[in-house]
Amino acid sequence: MTATAPMPAAPVTARTEKIPVAVLGATGSVGQRFIQLLERHPWFRLHEVVASERSAGKTYRDAADWRLESVLPEAAANLTVKDLGADLESKLVFSGLDSSVAGEAEDLYADRGCVVVSNSKNHRMDSDVPLLIPEINADHLDAVERQRKRRRSNGYIVTNPNCSTVGLALAIAPIEHQHGLDVMHVTTMQAISGAGYAGVPSYAILDNVIPYISSEEDKIETEPRKILGRWEDGKFVDADFRISAQTNRVPVIDGHLMTISFRLRNSAELRKMFTMEQLMKDLCSAIDSFEGEPQRLGLPSAPKHPLQYINEKDRPQPRLDRDRENGMTVSVGRLRPCPLLDFRMVALVHNTIRGAAGAALLNAELMQARGML
Amino acid sequence: MTATAPMPAAPVTARTEKIPVAVLGATGSVGQRFIQLLERHPWFRLHEVVASERSAGKTYRDAADWRLESVLPEAAANLTVKDLGADLESKLVFSGLDSSVAGEAEDLYADRGCVVVSNSKNHRMDSDVPLLIPEINADHLDAVERQRKRRRSNGYIVTNPNCSTVGLALAIAPIEHQHGLDVMHVTTMQAISGAGYAGVPSYAILDNVIPYISSEEDKIETEPRKILGRWEDGKFVDADFRISAQTNRVPVIDGHLMTISFRLRNSAELRKMFTMEQLMKDLCSAIDSFEGEPQRLGLPSAPKHPLQYINEKDRPQPRLDRDRENGMTVSVGRLRPCPLLDFRMVALVHNTIRGAAGAALLNAELMQARGML
Amino acid sequence: MTATAPMPAAPVTARTEKIPVAVLGATGSVGQRFIQLLERHPWFRLHEVVASERSAGKTYRDAADWRLESVLPEAAANLTVKDLGADLESKLVFSGLDSSVAGEAEDLYADRGCVVVSNSKNHRMDSDVPLLIPEINADHLDAVERQRKRRRSNGYIVTNPNCSTVGLALAIAPIEHQHGLDVMHVTTMQAISGAGYAGVPSYAILDNVIPYISSEEDKIETEPRKILGRWEDGKFVDADFRISAQTNRVPVIDGHLMTISFRLRNSAELRKMFTMEQLMKDLCSAIDSFEGEPQRLGLPSAPKHPLQYINEKDRPQPRLDRDRENGMTVSVGRLRPCPLLDFRMVALVHNTIRGAAGAALLNAELMQARGML
Amino acid sequence: MTATAPMPAAPVTARTEKIPVAVLGATGSVGQRFIQLLERHPWFRLHEVVASERSAGKTYRDAADWRLESVLPEAAANLTVKDLGADLESKLVFSGLDSSVAGEAEDLYADRGCVVVSNSKNHRMDSDVPLLIPEINADHLDAVERQRKRRRSNGYIVTNPNCSTVGLALAIAPIEHQHGLDVMHVTTMQAISGAGYAGVPSYAILDNVIPYISSEEDKIETEPRKILGRWEDGKFVDADFRISAQTNRVPVIDGHLMTISFRLRNSAELRKMFTMEQLMKDLCSAIDSFEGEPQRLGLPSAPKHPLQYINEKDRPQPRLDRDRENGMTVSVGRLRPCPLLDFRMVALVHNTIRGAAGAALLNAELMQARGML
Repeated sequence: MTATAPMPAAPVTARTEKIPVAVLGATGSVGQRFIQLLERHPWFRLHEVVASERSAGKTYRDAADWRLESVLPEAAANLTVKDLGADLESKLVFSGLDSSVAGEAEDLYADRGCVVVSNSKNHRMDSDVPLLIPEINADHLDAVERQRKRRRSNGYIVTNPNCSTVGLALAIAPIEHQHGLDVMHVTTMQAISGAGYAGVPSYAILDNVIPYISSEEDKIETEPRKILGRWEDGKFVDADFRISAQTNRVPVIDGHLMTISFRLRNSAELRKMFTMEQLMKDLCSAIDSFEGEPQRLGLPSAPKHPLQYINEKDRPQPRLDRDRENGMTVSVGRLRPCPLLDFRMVALVHNTIRGAAGAALLNAELMQARGML
Repeated sequence: MTATAPMPAAPVTARTEKIPVAVLGATGSVGQRFIQLLERHPWFRLHEVVASERSAGKTYRDAADWRLESVLPEAAANLTVKDLGADLESKLVFSGLDSSVAGEAEDLYADRGCVVVSNSKNHRMDSDVPLLIPEINADHLDAVERQRKRRRSNGYIVTNPNCSTVGLALAIAPIEHQHGLDVMHVTTMQAISGAGYAGVPSYAILDNVIPYISSEEDKIETEPRKILGRWEDGKFVDADFRISAQTNRVPVIDGHLMTISFRLRNSAELRKMFTMEQLMKDLCSAIDSFEGEPQRLGLPSAPKHPLQYINEKDRPQPRLDRDRENGMTVSVGRLRPCPLLDFRMVALVHNTIRGAAGAALLNAELMQARGML
Repeated sequence: MTATAPMPAAPVTARTEKIPVAVLGATGSVGQRFIQLLERHPWFRLHEVVASERSAGKTYRDAADWRLESVLPEAAANLTVKDLGADLESKLVFSGLDSSVAGEAEDLYADRGCVVVSNSKNHRMDSDVPLLIPEINADHLDAVERQRKRRRSNGYIVTNPNCSTVGLALAIAPIEHQHGLDVMHVTTMQAISGAGYAGVPSYAILDNVIPYISSEEDKIETEPRKILGRWEDGKFVDADFRISAQTNRVPVIDGHLMTISFRLRNSAELRKMFTMEQLMKDLCSAIDSFEGEPQRLGLPSAPKHPLQYINEKDRPQPRLDRDRENGMTVSVGRLRPCPLLDFRMVALVHNTIRGAAGAALLNAELMQARGML
Repeated sequence: MTATAPMPAAPVTARTEKIPVAVLGATGSVGQRFIQLLERHPWFRLHEVVASERSAGKTYRDAADWRLESVLPEAAANLTVKDLGADLESKLVFSGLDSSVAGEAEDLYADRGCVVVSNSKNHRMDSDVPLLIPEINADHLDAVERQRKRRRSNGYIVTNPNCSTVGLALAIAPIEHQHGLDVMHVTTMQAISGAGYAGVPSYAILDNVIPYISSEEDKIETEPRKILGRWEDGKFVDADFRISAQTNRVPVIDGHLMTISFRLRNSAELRKMFTMEQLMKDLCSAIDSFEGEPQRLGLPSAPKHPLQYINEKDRPQPRLDRDRENGMTVSVGRLRPCPLLDFRMVALVHNTIRGAAGAALLNAELMQARGML
């Protein structure tokens, strides 16, 4: 499944000095989550915070309107915010930039030699930029070599997927690996935090559902095909399956839930060879035992179980299941036959952790473990 | 579409005395909504309230823990609750009984000669009981003759569908009529009122979605086939299409929203003959101009538009659109191509009005207009 | 209580042509509510919509992001938005302007001869501007004469109070009239709509309460004293009571609820003369029978009961009671002894109707009935 | 403030075997929280689960409908539920029983020699039962001697206060200690979890506030007087201050928020000697530095700061602050002058942790540290 250049554990544990990192878009929602997750990170140390002109020059305490449940880390609070575009001392750069500026700014820093680990959508589908979920496609990092050549720089960009995509791609990965997927219908019920702090007015969403999220359906329909595809002969080849996605905003704080109906690639043959019950049992077990390079390498942010199948008939539920393994585990439940395709199921991802800042952090950890920083 | 035994308007408007009616399960959620909708009804007058032993003998004011936004109607408040099974003076009986007792009790009253207009699920799929949406299958009332014979009684039962089914069946009716449907994937996001007053604890649903509603998916997959099917040679023949439904409970007070992806019956041919844009325009217009016998007869609870297509890209929304035409209009929006089937769209139904008490009332009005009471 | 210059009903009912009006700040939350309430108004006709430069020149349909449950009125949709400051054809002007611009703009139009009926806070405490609740202080309109002199213009400004103040002032008015009030402690639980459409991000308020609303406590502590005070010898004399207010934002869409503990002015004497039970009975009856000039004049927006006492022990509640009499009735409940002062009670006001646009409309109706337009 | 019989730390840390405990009412809301908090407790080990007849005989997994965010602990899942009244092997018994049965059952076990640490209301105001908040009135445990005599048993009952009372009593304790309190007005906004899992139907509370909680106001007005009073000459003497409380249910999952206005005992003198600003500074500092015996003894569940003053103007907020120090810290904010009394402030308590199961656990820890088990 994943390229597993075996990596000696020693360098990681022996590391004595933490790697300094910068956060672009540090005052925004994703940026704040980066600051929070970096506070006690064993490998990385927050060294620089970068934001728009409006914040530059202020201390981070004054510039950021801190809104997470945990307390603003003291070390971050006293940093002076640098202007986007300023020279940075850190080689490793996390980007939580708004897509209106991320495209250019990330290129700029990559061209200057930085390793940009981005949560923004701008470069996700670029032909030499990995769209990375370390449990699934660690080998896509091979594309970095080509990207470096294009840039004529040591720097490069690696991206993580859209928050819903992360949940969907992980939930279907063991199924795609085991039997191959043909088509799937997905309907999401997404949390308000996915739109940023002020993205969804309470007047719009209390006692309501909004059946529309701008450009979200397109991402969910295309990104998983790149992620579960191959890096081959110097280019990305999409996976064969096709997706139809319908997205909705619901009054939930964190956690994107989605219903999925799917047909397997060799549906007719499989149904001849196995009963539906056997197939379901196999799939559940494939989901529960799924793991990848982060688990084998013991990366600090890697959950023990990137996927967990829950047997209760009414699960997963956002409030009860989003925080499993610090929000890094995607939960799956209700696997059952579909009267039209083969099977149906429900999946849940913590959108601001596994689906955003936590995803980027895990990407950086993989890259560090592979000696790419 | 509907059998239209032309009915002279005169008798309706000339009627001077209102028809006395009884409500079974009068203290429950659906029962209360019946009481509310009957308060100012031009044809019907609340005459008897019936509930379980626990309430029998009390005044309705004391027995019902009234929870609707409007004030408890004075006329209802002072009625004495009768015990379920007691003899009734009213011939017309609305049933909002819990399914644990509805089956027997409704049979009992029908056998005694009552016309039972039921919202309960128990008799919906019976082979001679109409599952009625007056705009769609008024002609299914022809089954009543056979039912009467079976019962050897003048009484009979007519049912309205499950709340989600009403929304789905109405939304697809003009499409089924125009081109015919093949398959559809449906995911619902259902309001808490669908589960009755105390059905969903707040601790279970605040900041949450529950991806399971007991036996709901089965109803949505089967009921529309009966509704859009035919009464032919003394039996119901299901419509040909097939449905896969996934149901979810969301923190919304009233209004079931659903995403629908569907393939037309002659998809390949239609796509040769028309562009997707032409087909979409046709469907929108079929939705907007859809009407049936209630509109032609001018029934008191009939909305002018049983269906309304909303053009805004993020509609319908439960809080903004559920009350259109007093909650009797189903709203549709976001019709657009589906990358896997033909089209996708979103539909919304007010679950406790068009999807429950209002549906039953409209059924009774149709039956009255046809001289069946 | 109120100056009751008897007004012949005839002119009102005989009116054949509606009065053209303008709405300032027409695209905002309060502005939209004005447009909605004016749609079917028997006396007034929306003639002009005014907003900031950004909207000027567009049709109202394009400029306003319409978010109310009802449909955008066709007549309003096609009006062209005028720039704030532009000359107006209407003499009667409703202002829902943001306080950052309301101060100057309202003065400007009043100086030009317009009658400005404002919901903004800027001129509420001006020494010759009535802060009007027609049921309580219709006689404060006498201050208009002095204001006109100051302006050397026929135009003038009349304001309605802060949304919470309206609820509080109405709830205590019959008590102040009957026995006089000494002190009261008030804690509010205010709906999100009070902050405007995008005022409260959902991420801030879901599963939460915010115990702070900017400058709200000051308004609640001062405005009722002006409203229940007197216009005497050319100036406003405050009522004697004093208020301590604590304000909170809760996840409720519409309806400000508040707890009130109060001491009567002659508490010791009253308690000697009457039992607590007698006093409570008197107060309940004073609340229930309270009415003022709008009721006597039969103004179109006047509720039959500006106050209603609800006997159920757990009422009023925002969702169940805010819409009484189209949102123009303030509900009161739970009157009971206070172990520290005399009594405690709970009051509820629909903040965007009785507490904002509906209040302004009633003000204008009173002024029209008095021949002041 | 607290009797501080110095306790050597050694026995605690040297303890090698955990104390077996039973939980009464183990399947309920509070019971489940006990099970959760006991999972990793350093001193106590869950040994027996007790519930009503309906559950007795089943495994805890089958009997409990587990609803907490964390996973049902394996050790608890396999225990067989014992019938209430059955003989127990554990001497230490936690009670989360419903008040309808707690009174008798707790007496029964105490009479049999058990130490019953109860969260139920039944025995809170008994004349020889401590109503314990270890930071405030650890010396009230002296009453146990008398209780044992009355029972002629080694067993006894110790209770923790009502959830709102815990927040209020802790918030005012440093003020009572420093200057003494005279009167206070309290309005609470309480979370739904306070009413148990199914206590508040979602239909009742979504988009709503309920201004009534049965018998809650009485508890808040009386319990703090016992807690902050003295055990003297063999009886409890209430503190002198008086409280008026108004209670409301709000759509918040966990965390009771309350506004408090208070007058100091020697208000007039203090205001002569100090400026309001000096007094406020003193109070803030008294709140922030407040601690008691749990902190001095280093009890396992003791927060480092039982109280924390938050400077931001809009805090504390339930969702952001309820989990400070694992839900054991009460947060205070917005201390400012009151125009009627002396000061106003806002306090927040996690109602199911510091206000219920966590409170009982801390009580038991104190009793163990004092050698009373």
